[in-house]
Amino acid sequence: MKARVHVMLKNGVLDPQGEAVRHALGSLGFDGVEGVRQGKVIELDLAETDADKARANVTEMCEKLLANTVIESYSVEIA
Amino acid sequence: MKARVHVMLKNGVLDPQGEAVRHALGSLGFDGVEGVRQGKVIELDLAETDADKARANVTEMCEKLLANTVIESYSVEIA
Repeated sequence: MKARVHVMLKNGVLDPQGEAVRHALGSLGFDGVEGVRQGKVIELDLAETDADKARANVTEMCEKLLANTVIESYSVEIA
Repeated sequence: MKARVHVMLKNGVLDPQGEAVRHALGSLGFDGVEGVRQGKVIELDLAETDADKARANVTEMCEKLLANTVIESYSVEIA
């Protein structure tokens, strides 16, 4: 079973990486880019075959390791 | 209009970051994690209101800046 986790900085947390990308896009002549946020995506290959158990498991992974929940939010997709 | 870009290392390209995450998950007692790939997600806020134009625009951004197409693949979602 595959899981995909998105980890993004929470709104209001400064995102210098996204800001740098926005700046670089402007320099390259891409107008109309009003904001950029950059985050991580983590794709997991799981032995688990039950979707609910997999989701619970991955959520625990996020809480413990994958996301810094003080400044980051995460979302879990199971496929 | 919002766009979301996923940039992942191509299959066959070594992903040490993903490997490190897999290892760390194992150390934390999460069994059954067979593979981890880590990539980037970039969320763009665009002034463009036409979905097709936005997609073309973002694809060009990927080719020029956001992805290293030698080793990375990307996908664009327009929402």
